Amino acid sequence: MQTGSSEWTVDLDRGSVVPIYRQIYERFREQILAGALPEGTRLPPERALAERLAVNRSTIVRGYRDLAADGLIDQRVGSGSRVAAALRAGQPERSAAVPWWVTLPPWRVGQFPAVLGELAASEHGDRIAFVQGVPPAEPSPLADLSRCFARAGGDEKFVLTYGDSEGYAPLREAIALRMRARGCSVDPRDVLMLTGSTQGITLAAQSLAEPGDEIVVEAPTYPGALQIFQIAGLRALTVPVDEEGMRVDHVEAILRTRRPRFIYTMPSIHNPTGATMSAQRRDRLVALARRYGVPIVEDDPYGELSDSQIEPLRARDADSVIYLSSFSKTIAPSLRLGWLIGPRTVYERLLLRKQSYDMASSMYIQAGVREYLETGYDQHLAALRAELRERRTIALRAIERWWPAGLRAATGGGGYYVWATTPRERGARALLAAAERLGASFLFGEAFFAQAGGDHNFRLALTPVPRASIEEGIRRIGEAAR
Amino acid sequence: MQTGSSEWTVDLDRGSVVPIYRQIYERFREQILAGALPEGTRLPPERALAERLAVNRSTIVRGYRDLAADGLIDQRVGSGSRVAAALRAGQPERSAAVPWWVTLPPWRVGQFPAVLGELAASEHGDRIAFVQGVPPAEPSPLADLSRCFARAGGDEKFVLTYGDSEGYAPLREAIALRMRARGCSVDPRDVLMLTGSTQGITLAAQSLAEPGDEIVVEAPTYPGALQIFQIAGLRALTVPVDEEGMRVDHVEAILRTRRPRFIYTMPSIHNPTGATMSAQRRDRLVALARRYGVPIVEDDPYGELSDSQIEPLRARDADSVIYLSSFSKTIAPSLRLGWLIGPRTVYERLLLRKQSYDMASSMYIQAGVREYLETGYDQHLAALRAELRERRTIALRAIERWWPAGLRAATGGGGYYVWATTPRERGARALLAAAERLGASFLFGEAFFAQAGGDHNFRLALTPVPRASIEEGIRRIGEAAR
Repeated sequence: MQTGSSEWTVDLDRGSVVPIYRQIYERFREQILAGALPEGTRLPPERALAERLAVNRSTIVRGYRDLAADGLIDQRVGSGSRVAAALRAGQPERSAAVPWWVTLPPWRVGQFPAVLGELAASEHGDRIAFVQGVPPAEPSPLADLSRCFARAGGDEKFVLTYGDSEGYAPLREAIALRMRARGCSVDPRDVLMLTGSTQGITLAAQSLAEPGDEIVVEAPTYPGALQIFQIAGLRALTVPVDEEGMRVDHVEAILRTRRPRFIYTMPSIHNPTGATMSAQRRDRLVALARRYGVPIVEDDPYGELSDSQIEPLRARDADSVIYLSSFSKTIAPSLRLGWLIGPRTVYERLLLRKQSYDMASSMYIQAGVREYLETGYDQHLAALRAELRERRTIALRAIERWWPAGLRAATGGGGYYVWATTPRERGARALLAAAERLGASFLFGEAFFAQAGGDHNFRLALTPVPRASIEEGIRRIGEAAR
Repeated sequence: MQTGSSEWTVDLDRGSVVPIYRQIYERFREQILAGALPEGTRLPPERALAERLAVNRSTIVRGYRDLAADGLIDQRVGSGSRVAAALRAGQPERSAAVPWWVTLPPWRVGQFPAVLGELAASEHGDRIAFVQGVPPAEPSPLADLSRCFARAGGDEKFVLTYGDSEGYAPLREAIALRMRARGCSVDPRDVLMLTGSTQGITLAAQSLAEPGDEIVVEAPTYPGALQIFQIAGLRALTVPVDEEGMRVDHVEAILRTRRPRFIYTMPSIHNPTGATMSAQRRDRLVALARRYGVPIVEDDPYGELSDSQIEPLRARDADSVIYLSSFSKTIAPSLRLGWLIGPRTVYERLLLRKQSYDMASSMYIQAGVREYLETGYDQHLAALRAELRERRTIALRAIERWWPAGLRAATGGGGYYVWATTPRERGARALLAAAERLGASFLFGEAFFAQAGGDHNFRLALTPVPRASIEEGIRRIGEAAR
């Protein structure tokens, strides 16, 4: 640093991992503590230094603010920044006048930070709340699960251990087998057990991209994923979804000119629209991923709930697809158990980061679920599919009966949700307020969009309410819309 | 960007979240696609552009590499970088000649990336393996736990839900009550349930700091924490540990001249040394944290295993301390259940990031543990403390009997581990190799140090082996040392 009055400059290492504002802070601190800048020395004006160093003025402001917080400089409006007086002794006594929680790193959250919590919470008073994506109470896996857990819980090798971070080997084998039955060539070593598939979205966001990077997401898409991408500092490029799933032509337009780190998609029973991507689009999407060298993060918690067998994207390409799924929608959310199937090229990278989240997923849970897969699971899945069909039939019939003309629902698709559209003159949030007064609720559409959109959409979850309440809840929403 | 042959420059936004290399990539891409840089145009040499923009050459190299990967430029040794020929049509057909997994973001792992996996894995053949920090097989919590889980597993409100991301309210209340009994004024709303306390370390590393930031850690310390800090890109400033715990005078010396984001410490039954911080040092550490405005991350998985009641640091300061603990060492690791007590000032920030790791910790597990806390836990804790005392007595007696003079162990402290020192002429890794040949193993000391150190230390975990094997294992290590 040169400190001639007219020739201030600061040596910056622009390739360093240390942010520029911090480097500016550090350089001045060194000089002040070393006595090279005596008490009362005037620091260069923020704007002038910013120009000289070719940085944003906010960068200088932040560096100076930290110096002031340390008591190293005094800042006064009108007279600028001067080296503080109390430093004559050489060692600053930093005051904590600025508490540590005020100077924390920037905090990036989505537009609707409370949505994930709302999806997790179960308290809705006595409203008919079509909100949470939890399995229906019937068919119940509880009795069979309890039997499986009683066995796992009696074995200290399942209870008094962490277990491999990759997951319980026999469970990974069972999952690989099931995936092979769905057309995917999976080796058990490719399977990484997760504490829910949400964990896999965060893994991808943190391991495959850096803050500032772009990714491709569907619009609408799972709000939890949007929140995760926001926290990770990723910039979402959006692609619309229609009855055939993601508009792959839009993906191609993006890939021609941009360089996203990955494409996040739910090709099978998409949340919230229920759409399943056509075979033609699947072919094209995988070809694009290969051609442009962009991996696909395939989120597939609902795929096994389809009445017709759907091949995951992973079946078409083992190198470009990172596959995620979960037992939350097919057995129970409180298992907090999901899995990832990763190409070998990134498996180790994902594994080490997964360890940092929770060491390993619970061995006790994994051992219990492994037993359940061998005993009650397939029967439960069949009954659950039938229940979902039944609920959808009830809901669509009620919608036809009770909703006014402008309020519409997507009738295709399957799974847990119905995606709806409000009339032009009424936004979904206003409808929600009215519906809540009548004792029904749902999730407003904007939460499903990374950018603008969704203000005339909402999602009905058909599973968290008693089957017998579906029609009445839908009737109330219809009444609210009038 | 100006493109006159002698006056190349690129407009950079140095305050942007977009990395500089990516900005360089983007600016050139725009110009090439717009036709402003026709086919064959020679790009400025990397070194010259680096100097002009005052960035590291590697930044330019990375930006150019990405342009080449996109097929936008051709790079030839000797003749530099030129705009590629195939672009005449305006839209580049990007080749995936460089696969996506080659151009992933930098991957930071610690010196010993496999150590966390080793700590989780339980496979050691028939060696007497003093490696894992798992509870002893006796006293066994299995029967009581099974009873508690059978009850939780029969209730759909514990199985078919995600539960609040903050955690199960009655469990948070029970924990707050227990913390109050340990001298901490804790409101249940301050408690955030975690999927193991490791999750809390990652939460702190990602929420309280940014890549490049400094933090203070003990040397030695928990290897899992070091791995997490490495992955998060944090720079560890180390402070030695003696019989009274962390050398707080070293902390003060650091705080006088540095600005770490937090101080990570295990003040109660420190891993690996077993030391507990003296009251005087606790007072001083908390005072320093306040004076310099630096929070303390208190990791306390072993504190409840002490024979004498230890007040957590959190009892001294509710504003500066983020407290972490776990049921992994006191009940069972496969619960994957821990908790954080956070100041209100950062609770929301931590909560939202915890959601991104796994939505919520398992309600089923939380409900079972809550019942166990009310029924068998205190009795189990008392029996576990007695067992740990007994194992330590056996171990120290065996060490005295079987180890040669130069091989020493810290005899104070408590908990799961014994921290040992090898003679000057023999490093701990060489000793480990010899001990493994004789059928015993342990964790080498370097894994516990962020910087150099530990090459003459190792840790014995006394709990993962049968009590009756402790002496024989220690004898084998003694034999290996001769």
